[in-house]
Amino acid sequence: MDPSAYHMTPDEFRLNARLVIDWIADYLERVEEYPVLSQVAPGEIRAKLPDRPPVSGEPFDTILADIDDIVLPGITHWQSPNFFGYFPANSSGPAILGELLSAGLGIQGMLWATSPAATELETHLMDWLVEMLGLPERFLSTSAGGGVIQDSASSATLVAILAARERATGFESSHRGTDPDLVVYTSNQAHSSVEKAARIAGFGTDKLRLVEVDDTYAMDPEALEAAIAADLAAGLKPTAVVATVGTTSSTAIDPVRRIGEIARRHGMWLHVDAALAGTAALLPEMRWLNDGVDLADSYVFNPHKWMLTNFDCSAFFVADRSTLIRSLSVLPEYLRNEASESGKVFDYRDWQIPLGRRFRALKLWFVIRHYGTEGLQAVVREHLRLARAFASWVEADPDFELAAPVSVNLVCFRHVGGDDVNERILETLNRSGDLLMTHTKLDGHYTLRMSIGQTRTEERHVRRAWDLIKQAAG
Amino acid sequence: MDPSAYHMTPDEFRLNARLVIDWIADYLERVEEYPVLSQVAPGEIRAKLPDRPPVSGEPFDTILADIDDIVLPGITHWQSPNFFGYFPANSSGPAILGELLSAGLGIQGMLWATSPAATELETHLMDWLVEMLGLPERFLSTSAGGGVIQDSASSATLVAILAARERATGFESSHRGTDPDLVVYTSNQAHSSVEKAARIAGFGTDKLRLVEVDDTYAMDPEALEAAIAADLAAGLKPTAVVATVGTTSSTAIDPVRRIGEIARRHGMWLHVDAALAGTAALLPEMRWLNDGVDLADSYVFNPHKWMLTNFDCSAFFVADRSTLIRSLSVLPEYLRNEASESGKVFDYRDWQIPLGRRFRALKLWFVIRHYGTEGLQAVVREHLRLARAFASWVEADPDFELAAPVSVNLVCFRHVGGDDVNERILETLNRSGDLLMTHTKLDGHYTLRMSIGQTRTEERHVRRAWDLIKQAAG
Repeated sequence: MDPSAYHMTPDEFRLNARLVIDWIADYLERVEEYPVLSQVAPGEIRAKLPDRPPVSGEPFDTILADIDDIVLPGITHWQSPNFFGYFPANSSGPAILGELLSAGLGIQGMLWATSPAATELETHLMDWLVEMLGLPERFLSTSAGGGVIQDSASSATLVAILAARERATGFESSHRGTDPDLVVYTSNQAHSSVEKAARIAGFGTDKLRLVEVDDTYAMDPEALEAAIAADLAAGLKPTAVVATVGTTSSTAIDPVRRIGEIARRHGMWLHVDAALAGTAALLPEMRWLNDGVDLADSYVFNPHKWMLTNFDCSAFFVADRSTLIRSLSVLPEYLRNEASESGKVFDYRDWQIPLGRRFRALKLWFVIRHYGTEGLQAVVREHLRLARAFASWVEADPDFELAAPVSVNLVCFRHVGGDDVNERILETLNRSGDLLMTHTKLDGHYTLRMSIGQTRTEERHVRRAWDLIKQAAG
Repeated sequence: MDPSAYHMTPDEFRLNARLVIDWIADYLERVEEYPVLSQVAPGEIRAKLPDRPPVSGEPFDTILADIDDIVLPGITHWQSPNFFGYFPANSSGPAILGELLSAGLGIQGMLWATSPAATELETHLMDWLVEMLGLPERFLSTSAGGGVIQDSASSATLVAILAARERATGFESSHRGTDPDLVVYTSNQAHSSVEKAARIAGFGTDKLRLVEVDDTYAMDPEALEAAIAADLAAGLKPTAVVATVGTTSSTAIDPVRRIGEIARRHGMWLHVDAALAGTAALLPEMRWLNDGVDLADSYVFNPHKWMLTNFDCSAFFVADRSTLIRSLSVLPEYLRNEASESGKVFDYRDWQIPLGRRFRALKLWFVIRHYGTEGLQAVVREHLRLARAFASWVEADPDFELAAPVSVNLVCFRHVGGDDVNERILETLNRSGDLLMTHTKLDGHYTLRMSIGQTRTEERHVRRAWDLIKQAAG
């Protein structure tokens, strides 16, 4: 058979694509009817899949039918308005269509030359975000800084730590190996990606200081100072500090300004991880979240969490792009080109771990243009209102208590009956499929996390959740 | 305004999605009419974008119109059948639709529990690929190994080197920092990602040996042995060797079996980078490419290059998953769950750098099922035939010569007139927009690279390319 006969023809593509579009539209219309947490047992999905790959191609409708029959039972519905677990990983119509267009264009954005529009649109949108969130002007591409889309805050934190490592050693660690005297600081509430980055980058956890927090779970700057002093006395080199604006456990807000002042005094790199909470700075009344970010060398927040843009889209900013680029650039002959050598363009491969990159700016562009800043603000403001309302219900109920301050859209709370009761409440709720919540531990106590930020979550979902929680406790 | 009023309604989504689908179908139908290499100057795309983000949302058709007006001129058309540059980053109808469905579901696959279907389908497909490519059974999930989808071969190579680092130090480097005595080996033709990984992982380029190659640009195993011996004599610890099956420059094939025997003798980790060429092992007559891979600790090839699956989809296999997982796992309380603790499931976050992950298995599933193994074989076999045909035309023309063996689908060749002539030929062709080729240097000489592997490339495109090349030279 002629090899080209195996391809989907343009007409087949149009037809099949409409099936997928209708499937998605139907799915999103009825997503709140599904049990939020998948109820399958390990191995149950695989058992439905054929042992061996098909020799002959199959009709598209057969394939699509398996989405209902095989895949859906194994889906935990992150797009359900009853999803209150982890952090939101929300999506939206324009985001899905931007991702679709990116797949259709199928370009590589590793170099400016491999599709100038991908790089320039991305740079431009990162500058838009600086304005939208009120971030410091030093993160603008028109200054010495700039922004780039990473796949995740984990990767952003890793490249920040690599840049810090190189700056601290005059770019010698790239050649000589990671200097064993370098030390990284973060709070004991920071995201696991900081530890992962310190391990990957060759510092090792022995050179990672998990600084104590205060009673709001925010980093204690005096404890940071003390840890730095101890390391300096031991002949070590304080290199980087990662401050968190909205920890994963409880959205605690580290005192970034004070941390930044300490970092500056010691010539350390300050990286700010605002993966979830950063989006809230869309609102003028939440701009206090950015206090001290003007002292940061790098900053990350995830539009793929709470800014209605589907994963992956993590916005990473640096104040001095030349340090980042020098830390990550390797230039083989087969990537050399006139535009790169002119120095007039960004080649984003030098801002990240992988070489290849999708055209992720499209979906972010679609989201910002579809909603406008006022639409994004309205959605986020409503989530904040709902979180405050939920917190007030918790406070008013003698059987429950808040477990941490509600700084943005996450309510950490617990039943007063102790760990076992709370664990049972969570298990009952998640098994029911009516909603999904997750947990953490704060001060050693099992704590329920009610994260309110899914695109389609409305007041009725939050009210129902509270009723179900009380029922499960009763 | 009610916040929910800003969302795209299901009906609007259906309508807008059809516009995007039709746009993509039209685009792919006429993609070969566009100048392959974007002809814009630096800054030209940005100049067309509004300085400030929109306050109010815009109609979707306005947004889509800007794809034609602003984005398209800045696109280098990787999906054009006249794209012969770099390596293919090909796509296909089913791949686009799988990506679309993944965006529509919008799930997170970081843990088994966060959507069991995403993990189990991925594990299952990786096992299918082992069979489809004739890879060693030790890479099967049913053995001690297993496969995972990474975003790129760069990331796969990085995690392989991290696992090697940890195995070599009894998992101590994660705590104490990268042991400064560890050494990594690869050929001087290996991909730049090996150097990048050695730098990131804290070895430094001083501990990266770029081993000499033979006259086919394949690693010389005797030179490898000599380098290892010298390092051992200096008290260093040979840790990992990265062998390449199909180098980026010229698709040279390292002698993996001999390299593997050396690695095994010294207790070193063998990672095999078959990013491009691996796909050719779909064909029984190309299975020789896998010779020696049974000695590998890890292996990567990219379905997103030549297996009709859009970026990102890099298939990474390990023989001993427990080493990989132990090297990368960090477990905070907020990710703890019953399924993970049962030990019965894979949590793919522990197989990669980032925490979050998309449902990338869907697109690969759609591709394999749409084409069947016979369809994929037919497409790849045709590309190989075209590459051999092109090579024969080069050989038959006294003005041109082959610059390296044609092992798979890349023809490295040059005009006999010298570097300047070849550079001018490339510039003329790429400026014309009629096709895109890129270059490399082999033995210090400027060399043209004709990479034949785009999904829709047919004989007529390759014949026309050859005519245009001869014209440009004349």
